[in-house]
Amino acid sequence: MRITSISVTPVAVQDPPLLNSEGVHQTHALRSIIKMTADDGSVGWGETYGDDIMLRWLGAVAERLVGIDVLDVHRIEAVVDAELDAGVHEEVAAAPAGAGYPMADAASAKTRAAVLSAFEVPCLDLIGKSLGVPVSALLGGARRDRVDYSAYLFYKWAEHPGRPYAADSWGEVLDAAAMVGEARRMVDEYGFRSLKVKGGVLTPAEEVETVRALRAEFPTLPIRIDPNAAWTVDVAVAVGEALEGDLEYLEDPVAGTAAMAEVARRVKMPLATNMCVTAFEDLPEAVREGAPQVILSDHHFWGGLRRSVQLDTLCHTFGIELSMHSNTHLGISLAAMTHFGAVSRSLAYSCDTHTPWQTEDVLAAETPLRFEGGAVRVPTAPGLGIEVDEDAVARLHQQWRECGVRTRDDVTPMRAVDPTWTGDVPRFTTL
Amino acid sequence: MRITSISVTPVAVQDPPLLNSEGVHQTHALRSIIKMTADDGSVGWGETYGDDIMLRWLGAVAERLVGIDVLDVHRIEAVVDAELDAGVHEEVAAAPAGAGYPMADAASAKTRAAVLSAFEVPCLDLIGKSLGVPVSALLGGARRDRVDYSAYLFYKWAEHPGRPYAADSWGEVLDAAAMVGEARRMVDEYGFRSLKVKGGVLTPAEEVETVRALRAEFPTLPIRIDPNAAWTVDVAVAVGEALEGDLEYLEDPVAGTAAMAEVARRVKMPLATNMCVTAFEDLPEAVREGAPQVILSDHHFWGGLRRSVQLDTLCHTFGIELSMHSNTHLGISLAAMTHFGAVSRSLAYSCDTHTPWQTEDVLAAETPLRFEGGAVRVPTAPGLGIEVDEDAVARLHQQWRECGVRTRDDVTPMRAVDPTWTGDVPRFTTL
Repeated sequence: MRITSISVTPVAVQDPPLLNSEGVHQTHALRSIIKMTADDGSVGWGETYGDDIMLRWLGAVAERLVGIDVLDVHRIEAVVDAELDAGVHEEVAAAPAGAGYPMADAASAKTRAAVLSAFEVPCLDLIGKSLGVPVSALLGGARRDRVDYSAYLFYKWAEHPGRPYAADSWGEVLDAAAMVGEARRMVDEYGFRSLKVKGGVLTPAEEVETVRALRAEFPTLPIRIDPNAAWTVDVAVAVGEALEGDLEYLEDPVAGTAAMAEVARRVKMPLATNMCVTAFEDLPEAVREGAPQVILSDHHFWGGLRRSVQLDTLCHTFGIELSMHSNTHLGISLAAMTHFGAVSRSLAYSCDTHTPWQTEDVLAAETPLRFEGGAVRVPTAPGLGIEVDEDAVARLHQQWRECGVRTRDDVTPMRAVDPTWTGDVPRFTTL
Repeated sequence: MRITSISVTPVAVQDPPLLNSEGVHQTHALRSIIKMTADDGSVGWGETYGDDIMLRWLGAVAERLVGIDVLDVHRIEAVVDAELDAGVHEEVAAAPAGAGYPMADAASAKTRAAVLSAFEVPCLDLIGKSLGVPVSALLGGARRDRVDYSAYLFYKWAEHPGRPYAADSWGEVLDAAAMVGEARRMVDEYGFRSLKVKGGVLTPAEEVETVRALRAEFPTLPIRIDPNAAWTVDVAVAVGEALEGDLEYLEDPVAGTAAMAEVARRVKMPLATNMCVTAFEDLPEAVREGAPQVILSDHHFWGGLRRSVQLDTLCHTFGIELSMHSNTHLGISLAAMTHFGAVSRSLAYSCDTHTPWQTEDVLAAETPLRFEGGAVRVPTAPGLGIEVDEDAVARLHQQWRECGVRTRDDVTPMRAVDPTWTGDVPRFTTL
């Protein structure tokens, strides 16, 4: 089965003003929807980042994949490498300065893996449809029939400055009490059985207070906190000591594997990351340091679902556990994430998802991809097991044309409110 | 596509009296031929070890695989684990004492991986046939269309004691001059472009002389030597120093990863192994020690072809190179080895093969699996790309019934000639 055409459609979805150590989410989050058609007329779907620089890579690679067999991921990888080799000099200069967008470096393994992944998933969707089996079967077979996700809790503003559209239904969340309310609603609506707090926003002491308030309200739920490297090593250790027994893991309190390993040696909980170990080439240092002990996998930047299975075996071999990272995503990505969650041997924690924050999606209403008890049932229909609403894609593409957002950049909208804002980390040097 | 039946047929093939550090090859080498039938009537083939203990595992697992989808390798793995868990207490005592057969330990990861592999390969053959694509395509796509093998050179006797059947055509090879003759014939007939010497037989000094004689005769061919842990660290270092510049790698000169790493620090060539790193659980020590730097992969004991691809990625990640190990094998295994060789990214050396030593096979004559320029062209027909001659299987099964060999054991036939022989290593403590 060969690829006959690929369309890459950028879309924008409304996104609440969620806060993190870099700043605040923009009014719209960007994604690309990949539609791959095969020579038997069947269609495979994929979803990935939608930033301008990624669209440049996706467009260049897509037109060179026509005629390639959908199984031939090594050939797709070779095309990605060739296109990005050509783009190294041309495009790095065009990357947005200061936005910290990691896919701007054409030479990096992570960028290449992200581009590869964008095409690998629709290939698997096609192969699964051709064989009449779900993607999880193509990855070796589901080890579980439901994948657990966690409530992804954010401090947030009530509205974006300038009120570009109606406020979301979650209101302002800027202290522990409000965060408990956010968590209560999310747990009640989705059934989540673990909580993830996006930290690095309030002072570390206030965030400790938030975790303690969540612990009091939800005595049995695992809790984790992720300040995105906003702390120094000493702050991270102080938080770890303050919350000993309350956290299942501490995620990216500091930047870099060496600093993470130092924190790991000084606190009594595992360290987790989606920042310092984000490509295979980062693993030797982590293995040597013995930390972080948990990697948040993400098929979007680990090179696709088959590479994620390889990561899974590698982590099992070295005693590293897996959790799963999430950027803002739509339902195609949720399906892909769930298929990998179904087959992973090293997955030991509930996965992250931004789904509760999204009010717009590209899935057809009848797609059975819902949260029950905090979990998503692994789709059993062929391929990813989803139906895409192409009218929704067109509508969200039109929104992309109009919204003005072209690159993920949480710094600039925060700077509009606070002209001194830099987004630099570490932000907090004392508890 | 579901499995409807599996037959496991032990076969025996005549094997020349090849010498190694454990002793001498028996009169017959044992293999199992796995024939897997799917619910669409198509047939997949596999080949693995044929020792009694392996037949016990294969038989127990085979009958529990009926009804399982051929894609569901994780479920097959679970069946293997359950059967071998049950066999741990029952079977270890039944293992042949002193024969050193590694598959006797039901609890070991390596045994389980070997049993899994026996069924994984025929599943891939079936999937490939169903999709109309070669197995290499199912493993991500061929990176090369030919896989290089090396001339596997053995010291040998002219005949087995007792002359059970007509002598082979290779004659006695017990010194450097005779080995050069063996190599010349093998290079001329098969076109091999690298040489592997099975050492640990003569004194290290004599084997150094052999390598030097080969170097003189074949000035441009890479040479490696593998004494199967017959040497002490000091002997290994002395050989390494004597042959500096003449060896592409030194394979298993000593036993155990720690000793291998010590040799690696003291010689100027990479260390390679198929003895101290033979399962994923062995990799952390090798990574920590930084040696051996080359792993001889073998899908028969690494859990199959998909696990071999996972090993490939892991090795690429940690800067470990791959070569490929061979036990005595027939054409089904050669096809499977070639498909993995086609897709491997870390494969950096010619693969081992015993093919030139075998005069009997199970492949139909028209199967296009031949050596040209020392390489095998990667089969492009669906599945493994081979046709099995079932009459040949029946004939070699009859030979198995009559030959009396039931377990790989190189020690006993050597002891029949030399009653003091133990096969223990290290055998050589001085050059």
